[in-house]
Amino acid sequence: MTDVASSCRWGILGAASIARKNVRAMHLADNATPLAIASRTFEKAAAFAAEHGLDRAHGSYEALLEDPDVDAVYVPLPTTLHREWTIRAAEAGKHVLCEKPVAANASDVEAMIEACRDAGVQFMDGLMFMHHARMRRVESTLQRLGPEPDLVTSRFSFRGDAAFFENNIRGNADTEPLGCVGDLGWYCIRIALEVMGGMPDSVRARHHRLHGAVPIHSSAELDFPGRDGVRHAFIQCSFVHPLAQWVEICGAEGSMRLDDFVIGSPTEAVIQLETESRLTEQDLVHERRLERIVTEDCVQEVEMIRRFSDLARGALPLEPIWGVRSHETQRIVDAIMSSASVDGARVPIAP
Amino acid sequence: MTDVASSCRWGILGAASIARKNVRAMHLADNATPLAIASRTFEKAAAFAAEHGLDRAHGSYEALLEDPDVDAVYVPLPTTLHREWTIRAAEAGKHVLCEKPVAANASDVEAMIEACRDAGVQFMDGLMFMHHARMRRVESTLQRLGPEPDLVTSRFSFRGDAAFFENNIRGNADTEPLGCVGDLGWYCIRIALEVMGGMPDSVRARHHRLHGAVPIHSSAELDFPGRDGVRHAFIQCSFVHPLAQWVEICGAEGSMRLDDFVIGSPTEAVIQLETESRLTEQDLVHERRLERIVTEDCVQEVEMIRRFSDLARGALPLEPIWGVRSHETQRIVDAIMSSASVDGARVPIAP
Repeated sequence: MTDVASSCRWGILGAASIARKNVRAMHLADNATPLAIASRTFEKAAAFAAEHGLDRAHGSYEALLEDPDVDAVYVPLPTTLHREWTIRAAEAGKHVLCEKPVAANASDVEAMIEACRDAGVQFMDGLMFMHHARMRRVESTLQRLGPEPDLVTSRFSFRGDAAFFENNIRGNADTEPLGCVGDLGWYCIRIALEVMGGMPDSVRARHHRLHGAVPIHSSAELDFPGRDGVRHAFIQCSFVHPLAQWVEICGAEGSMRLDDFVIGSPTEAVIQLETESRLTEQDLVHERRLERIVTEDCVQEVEMIRRFSDLARGALPLEPIWGVRSHETQRIVDAIMSSASVDGARVPIAP
Repeated sequence: MTDVASSCRWGILGAASIARKNVRAMHLADNATPLAIASRTFEKAAAFAAEHGLDRAHGSYEALLEDPDVDAVYVPLPTTLHREWTIRAAEAGKHVLCEKPVAANASDVEAMIEACRDAGVQFMDGLMFMHHARMRRVESTLQRLGPEPDLVTSRFSFRGDAAFFENNIRGNADTEPLGCVGDLGWYCIRIALEVMGGMPDSVRARHHRLHGAVPIHSSAELDFPGRDGVRHAFIQCSFVHPLAQWVEICGAEGSMRLDDFVIGSPTEAVIQLETESRLTEQDLVHERRLERIVTEDCVQEVEMIRRFSDLARGALPLEPIWGVRSHETQRIVDAIMSSASVDGARVPIAP
């Protein structure tokens, strides 16, 4: 049996600005060490290392993968590069934390997960919210909504400025073909999967606005099988609307609302639970009874890095479920793209 | 010119329980007098009159329409009876406040409005929320959302119990064929119409659950033409989900949320406005800046009765716009029913 290392030593594949948040989390997590950064030039890597307190800079991704002191890599590269570098990292024996969307399509995700499985390394996508302590409260509170949740509505949007659309990889069909569906819809899909407890059997979706070929405002309906009939998730994601990141989860007996489900507050993450609201006095008054469930302080990205580091350093057995969920999410993304390409026609999802 | 009467004298066509709220409003409005009630039996009418402080009871709807002291009638009858009794009331020279849904289909609404126009009487549907002072604030605040609102999401649901589904007219295909679309969707459609400032050019909708032939959970997407492309309204209505009555209105620069848009609080009707919320500190924190716009005290059903009474007694010139809005709303209801009958296919709406 492998010894359990005291700390997981991290390498970052690419000096993307999104990496800063996770490098900070690696500094904060007591079982993680942010060790090395790779960029396409040594100068860029060295600058990032100096700014963010990393000991080593590599002038190529290959060099980082050859670094024997790196246990795990974080992959914040453009989406279309995820497949190649995740597989190469796995083959180099590195555990892989990969930004979302995980890949351009589900067959790429299958190849990535297979490579990680074959190499005996952990795969996980970078969905921080799943690691917020609030999610455990969401799960344990679901039963208060009735026999099973049957309606999930969510919206994740932020408004990109001109620079975002000109320069950001997220507006570029070569590197980010899935646009807002892959970048923002990923979260909406995942929380629906978690809450519904399984896969939808069909999807309908439309792109309402494109930037070139890239969707920047889309909506989707996911139909899930349920004990008492079809259950539904409604998703909206957009780069052209003001910041919003809410989800509403309904069952027969009540509803839950999270106003900040993607980037949950580190100090006051709230679930608004409504199970007793009524119309009273001959429908004159909506008597609203809101229960505010406040979660203990939790910095979700630190929890994600801590969890992953425990998996990578052998303190916990590997968890294949994270790869399974990434694959499921990507299959739904693919179905959304398919449905949108035929103006919202129903696209079945095989079991 | 007709003299302006000091008070509008009301007759109620049918002793429906929904009538109680408006009779109370007639007692409260200083320009209204709740005078008479008609039911299919004199006993039932007399009992209602005694309980709700009306002077006169009529044992038939015809008798009430022949009562020369009645200026205006309120029609809370089952939907499929609205056409006949609205037209007969208009022909008897009575102004008509008609419950929603106004009719079984748009051609019935046309006949009703035409009859009112020919008779020179006011027509209005019973959407109280339109008369809440908060709606004026919504309208004057829209400009803070950007050039034009382009995304309206709303949900109106309440959970019917067994008695509701067995006895209530709302679960009966003969009297309420439009189910939750006519009863609840009517509000969601109307607020979208008001906010978007015009008609959608197409609709897609699905019924997710039926009770016999009557829809009890439906959703719809309305596509509106806009200056910068298509604008969208997403609507959910349901008799099988917990009480909810919210609307979210977005433009490029901000959003508004009303948590109780249908039955607005008489003492603390709020608009939650967000125009400055940002992700800060490298996307670590969602800095939410909520502005709470609180409307002065306003009992919306009293405002509706007051407005209508002023129109009926000649203190204000007749307002055809109310009939126009009812007709537009009904056309969208019809399109929703059509689309749902073909599994969500796009149904165009003629200009």
